[in-house]
Amino acid sequence: MWKNNLSLLTDLYEFTMAACYYRHKMFAPATFSLFIREYPPNRGYFVSAGLADVLDFLETFHFKQGDLDYLAQTGLFSDDFLHYLGKLRFTGDVFAIPEGRLFFKDEPILEITAPIIEAQLVETFVMNAINLQVMIATKAARCVHAAGGRAVVDFSLRRTQGIDAGLKVARASYIAGFIGTSNVLAGKHYGIPVFGTMAHSFVTSFKREIDAFRAFAEMFPENTVLLIDTYDTVIGAHKAAIVGKEMIEKGKRLKGVRIDSGNMAELSQEVKAVLEEAGLNDVMIFASGGLDEYKIERLLKEGAEIDAFGVGTKMGVSADAPYTDIAYKLVKYNGRPVLKLSTGKRTLVDEKQVFRIIENGKLKKDIIALRSEQLSGDPLLRPVMKGGKRIINDDLKDIRARFQEEFGNLAERYRRLNAPDTYPVEISSGLENLQNQVVFKVKEKELGES
Amino acid sequence: MWKNNLSLLTDLYEFTMAACYYRHKMFAPATFSLFIREYPPNRGYFVSAGLADVLDFLETFHFKQGDLDYLAQTGLFSDDFLHYLGKLRFTGDVFAIPEGRLFFKDEPILEITAPIIEAQLVETFVMNAINLQVMIATKAARCVHAAGGRAVVDFSLRRTQGIDAGLKVARASYIAGFIGTSNVLAGKHYGIPVFGTMAHSFVTSFKREIDAFRAFAEMFPENTVLLIDTYDTVIGAHKAAIVGKEMIEKGKRLKGVRIDSGNMAELSQEVKAVLEEAGLNDVMIFASGGLDEYKIERLLKEGAEIDAFGVGTKMGVSADAPYTDIAYKLVKYNGRPVLKLSTGKRTLVDEKQVFRIIENGKLKKDIIALRSEQLSGDPLLRPVMKGGKRIINDDLKDIRARFQEEFGNLAERYRRLNAPDTYPVEISSGLENLQNQVVFKVKEKELGES
Repeated sequence: MWKNNLSLLTDLYEFTMAACYYRHKMFAPATFSLFIREYPPNRGYFVSAGLADVLDFLETFHFKQGDLDYLAQTGLFSDDFLHYLGKLRFTGDVFAIPEGRLFFKDEPILEITAPIIEAQLVETFVMNAINLQVMIATKAARCVHAAGGRAVVDFSLRRTQGIDAGLKVARASYIAGFIGTSNVLAGKHYGIPVFGTMAHSFVTSFKREIDAFRAFAEMFPENTVLLIDTYDTVIGAHKAAIVGKEMIEKGKRLKGVRIDSGNMAELSQEVKAVLEEAGLNDVMIFASGGLDEYKIERLLKEGAEIDAFGVGTKMGVSADAPYTDIAYKLVKYNGRPVLKLSTGKRTLVDEKQVFRIIENGKLKKDIIALRSEQLSGDPLLRPVMKGGKRIINDDLKDIRARFQEEFGNLAERYRRLNAPDTYPVEISSGLENLQNQVVFKVKEKELGES
Repeated sequence: MWKNNLSLLTDLYEFTMAACYYRHKMFAPATFSLFIREYPPNRGYFVSAGLADVLDFLETFHFKQGDLDYLAQTGLFSDDFLHYLGKLRFTGDVFAIPEGRLFFKDEPILEITAPIIEAQLVETFVMNAINLQVMIATKAARCVHAAGGRAVVDFSLRRTQGIDAGLKVARASYIAGFIGTSNVLAGKHYGIPVFGTMAHSFVTSFKREIDAFRAFAEMFPENTVLLIDTYDTVIGAHKAAIVGKEMIEKGKRLKGVRIDSGNMAELSQEVKAVLEEAGLNDVMIFASGGLDEYKIERLLKEGAEIDAFGVGTKMGVSADAPYTDIAYKLVKYNGRPVLKLSTGKRTLVDEKQVFRIIENGKLKKDIIALRSEQLSGDPLLRPVMKGGKRIINDDLKDIRARFQEEFGNLAERYRRLNAPDTYPVEISSGLENLQNQVVFKVKEKELGES
């Protein structure tokens, strides 16, 4: 039911505000800016993701009769306003940082300019889509970075926060360098490679562990990864070695074994020894179970003999930072730059651009400027929608490549997992001056200061 | 696209395992048990939620041609297996703890008995649905408890982890005693009351704050809650008082003011004084912004003059515990009780029941038993689906009332927000004996011990 109906997936106050704007004939263009105010713990960068869903949503935004009927029965809205809503489409312009690029706190990820009712009503969905995917792509980038070139696969679906998250996590983690996902629907929908072999239930459903191993190897001789920790990991490794040797006799090859519990640094070394003793040197050791970037880093420091990681829950919910301090703020209305002064919540006024300065191929600093300013550097915000029609449609593989390239150009001190340095983000003098003027005017007008 | 297609929302290994079961003609009944292994930090109980979605999913489980085509092109599956999948429906039985009831760690929330392929393929969705809603209902219950009778409203949609979570959070928090949500689609879909008035953008879009207040009061005279912290909370309160008095002159009443930033204990007291000075004693003070159960408790201890709370992100993602250690484990196959021995991951074998012992109207302890045992006490697991057909269809308001009643009967030492006592959960002697026998046999068989 949702997909047909997402325009109603918003907060009630968007409609009460819209009704007031309508009554007061406030149809002038408004610009809203989407940005993240603070880094979550241990974060020093963000990965742009989620824009494709935003553009899909904006392009198809409309209310159906059932939506209007529901709004009518709240008793809050006039018939003529509801009639107006029935004809409403999103007609605005959008500038955004393309998916896969890095960005930093305070930088606008996306700016929407549209008649205020349109720009206001889409707030909730836009925030929701970008918040989730940026958060996950950033978490996933950290996992890939920790794995130091070893493969990482998304195993999170069973504990993502809902099924929409399950799909978007598969996509966002793929952008950040995961090689694929266990999520079959995500594989189908996004064209992401899918991975998976067996669970403990498979092993326990057979009378003996080795029967389960043999049944699987017979069925999927090209793709056998045996889960060896159901009863005892090292004993399981010996049984896997038996099956591995049987496969060789049949001209096949055991692809790998998986460890899902216990002290994985020690166990992986013991398992490696068992496999090598059996002459199975090319059998991959796959680890899963409670992994995240911190645990991957620790395992590798401890000398774990692990070739690939299945990363689930802690990535899929971004467990150490399960939300970002994302905000969608009105920065201009009818040509007038605006802001709020609420404690601890700064908003940068007006339409903006972010210029990225590159030195020797490395990211040096960013400058947040007015969009009307022409600074040197790479302008991050690109026009992505014009008059309600999308003007980009990036391929997922291109987005993934874009991330990989730019991440490679970010110095390690900004990328490290714990307490990274703060990447320098400056405010242009043009923006600074306008900001100060607007703050002064607002204080004068609203607080009686001068 | 999802709603038509959720049967594919699963992990690839469910299909590879199913293909092996199919090849080996393993169609015997299997029982899987869903339970949570550990309490997240500061949790001493869980609230059952999510069952309705599980039953909807099971009742409509089937693969469409497009799903089968996708599976075919992975190259992993035989035509006859795919043909079999095309005809597959869920035909099993389900026992579950009804939504709204309390349960504790290790207790089975739900047990599915079905031919092993069916019970295996539905694993991922079942875990995902129950994990999210239990986690959120539990978090929300803590917020309601902290608020001590004051109203609490769900404001989380903009930062829930995706849109499915946005809907399920509204539902789960309503079960746990929230009075409603800002989420309009959830309001429509579940029949939950919706709330909301204005954002900062509304205030800044007008030339002066008081113009915004007057416009809103004129438009919604029965439902005016003014957001007063856009520029300065106390000055905003004075403006709200002016508008409140203007409303009285027109025979109307200012319903409330909202504070969304700053030191809310102090500010709420100052705002209360401003309102009382203006004779507006019945104007409600509404707080929002970064709230959770810990902050609500602290605010009230500090003497905050707050009548209602809008709780958003931290509840909507269960920020201090964004996942549970939920597991879906095979406990019986073809009449044989089974388990795994993996380090630190105990599974209780066989089909089970949980008996709740009540003393003087209060929850005293629970006993996990074999389902075949007849103990005194209230059996928590009820038959909810028989042969693939649901046999319950609880009304959301009844679920909400069920929670409220049982939560009232749980002693405060298990409910407190920090380091609650551990509610006593025993294992029946029948279950203990069978468990020990199975562990002994499995060790003998798989580890060569005796």
